[in-house]
Amino acid sequence: MSKGNLFIVSGPSGTGKGTICNELLKYDDIFLSVSVTTRNKRNDEVDGVTYFYDTVDGFKKRIDNGMMLEWAQYGDNYYGTPKDVVEAKLAAGINVILEIEVQGALKVKAQMPEAVMIFVVPPSMEELYSRLVNRGREEKSEIAKRIAIANGELLKASVYNYIVINDKLEESVNEVRQIIDDRKKQMEFIRGLIDASERLI
Amino acid sequence: MSKGNLFIVSGPSGTGKGTICNELLKYDDIFLSVSVTTRNKRNDEVDGVTYFYDTVDGFKKRIDNGMMLEWAQYGDNYYGTPKDVVEAKLAAGINVILEIEVQGALKVKAQMPEAVMIFVVPPSMEELYSRLVNRGREEKSEIAKRIAIANGELLKASVYNYIVINDKLEESVNEVRQIIDDRKKQMEFIRGLIDASERLI
Repeated sequence: MSKGNLFIVSGPSGTGKGTICNELLKYDDIFLSVSVTTRNKRNDEVDGVTYFYDTVDGFKKRIDNGMMLEWAQYGDNYYGTPKDVVEAKLAAGINVILEIEVQGALKVKAQMPEAVMIFVVPPSMEELYSRLVNRGREEKSEIAKRIAIANGELLKASVYNYIVINDKLEESVNEVRQIIDDRKKQMEFIRGLIDASERLI
Repeated sequence: MSKGNLFIVSGPSGTGKGTICNELLKYDDIFLSVSVTTRNKRNDEVDGVTYFYDTVDGFKKRIDNGMMLEWAQYGDNYYGTPKDVVEAKLAAGINVILEIEVQGALKVKAQMPEAVMIFVVPPSMEELYSRLVNRGREEKSEIAKRIAIANGELLKASVYNYIVINDKLEESVNEVRQIIDDRKKQMEFIRGLIDASERLI
């Protein structure tokens, strides 16, 4: 059995990258990495599904033991990607998707340079702006802040291998599915060459 | 005018990556980076075309001044990629291809993470083996050594974004041309989003 491949999905808030990733969970060979957090579990959340929940001390121990692929602190709470779960899934032949922001993505890429980087963008910034307004969750000033953050993320987009323009959800899901399949074929071909080269040496 | 994009082309010896890169020179918007070397100029070589030639002292000064994107020493001679030339071409809107081995490629990628990495492989290792034999340049023991080096390079192939299987030269050239064009379109789309986000902030 061949190893799974690692994919990092990033993109500005409101582009629908989370929806794309959740749609991909219908495939048995795809696992969406679950983050560890120190914030309190909400009633509708499930440990190990929404997040893994840990204490601040427990989280700090994970960092010290090199068990976090990347982590960040927002306010009083820590969030991060557990290395052991990702590695276990990959070893079991499952493709792993990390849906993380750009800073975290760069940290993971530095440790696992084989990660395939996918950046999800809206068809236009005007479209993103309307989506954020129509969600009705944020004040106008908060939306301006999100556009400013999006700007900063877009300036880093050149480090990503694939740009997925999320116009129609179904097409974007198929596009990412195709990227995952293509990578599998690539790596199997390389594996064949490696095996053949070992026979020829 | 938009900036040029950077491409790194690597692959085992004998896969024809050099021939692919030279064919791409027929396009005005593509520049193939010229290495600096300290070895003597041969009669049929042209300074600035085959290599830039420098003294050992001059080369060491370039290293100390951070002017080399990557460099390596083979025997008594130094070889490396000059940073200033690459940056000037990119700034002038020209796409730059670096044809370098895997270790050098990783060094460049660490400094210029926006580089698109292309790995050229033979259709099969048996095919590569015959090509090396038919070139008639090396002894059998030397060919075995090359296959062993190819094996080591293939083990690093997962850090590359694109795998180009060089079966028919013309198709491989078109494939790389397409990768370059796709990247240009991607980056122009991102540039449009960046500009729009600045108007919305």
